[in-house]
Amino acid sequence: MHYEIRPVGRVDKSQDHTVRLIIEPEFWDATLGIEHFSHLIILWWATGRDTPETRSTLQGTPPRIEGAKLSGVFAIRSNARPNPICHTIVKIESVDTGNHSLIIDRIDANDDTPIIDIKPYLPSSDRVDDARVPPWFEGLTKRYSR
Amino acid sequence: MHYEIRPVGRVDKSQDHTVRLIIEPEFWDATLGIEHFSHLIILWWATGRDTPETRSTLQGTPPRIEGAKLSGVFAIRSNARPNPICHTIVKIESVDTGNHSLIIDRIDANDDTPIIDIKPYLPSSDRVDDARVPPWFEGLTKRYSR
Repeated sequence: MHYEIRPVGRVDKSQDHTVRLIIEPEFWDATLGIEHFSHLIILWWATGRDTPETRSTLQGTPPRIEGAKLSGVFAIRSNARPNPICHTIVKIESVDTGNHSLIIDRIDANDDTPIIDIKPYLPSSDRVDDARVPPWFEGLTKRYSR
Repeated sequence: MHYEIRPVGRVDKSQDHTVRLIIEPEFWDATLGIEHFSHLIILWWATGRDTPETRSTLQGTPPRIEGAKLSGVFAIRSNARPNPICHTIVKIESVDTGNHSLIIDRIDANDDTPIIDIKPYLPSSDRVDDARVPPWFEGLTKRYSR
């Protein structure tokens, strides 16, 4: 059994200093009211990792993190995983209706990466005040928290 | 263009008072070290919403929320959306290796819902301290924050 997904937009990093999420024209109406939110959850497709080899990768060690231990891919954020869906929280800088795009602060996806879903960040369900992580993840730079 | 995804497990709510994520045996190795985390990001497939009609729904009004306004589906959390992928943060209660399952506190998915990805919740990238939402989402019950 499998399910089908299709892109709703793509990441545009072709312009200096501006990161855009360009939405397919047919899906632009799905952004109505998005300017009321400061942050979004972006789901994107790691196209380079859509291979039989990367999709059958079950374990790995996070790179560039001192002390990191071998972990299952459900316990790390590697994009080599059974379904190469990646998840990034971003901040909306502005909405560019004329160009069907959302200007955001940053995203750890390459230029032209397909976006498969956009959701509003709701602190009521998405913010965890006291989450526990293993020691090797404790020193990561905080993006939107203190 | 489209991409294929397949389930890596399913939600089991068949037992009273216990919510399980049952992982497919072939993917169990991907949970190595998951017990080091308190919270997970679960991506699941809204099977009942995988229809041409729901997948072409672009706008809606959140139900049971006073004052909610018509919004694009990228500005609400409805599972009627172009790709019916849903996103829930859950708390791990325990890991049941013998039954290839993770016991969690709760999830807003039906019994037998397919799980398509599991990611560790990392406060460094996933926690937003000062997120802004529209007034109609401000009164939602907080799950894991104060």
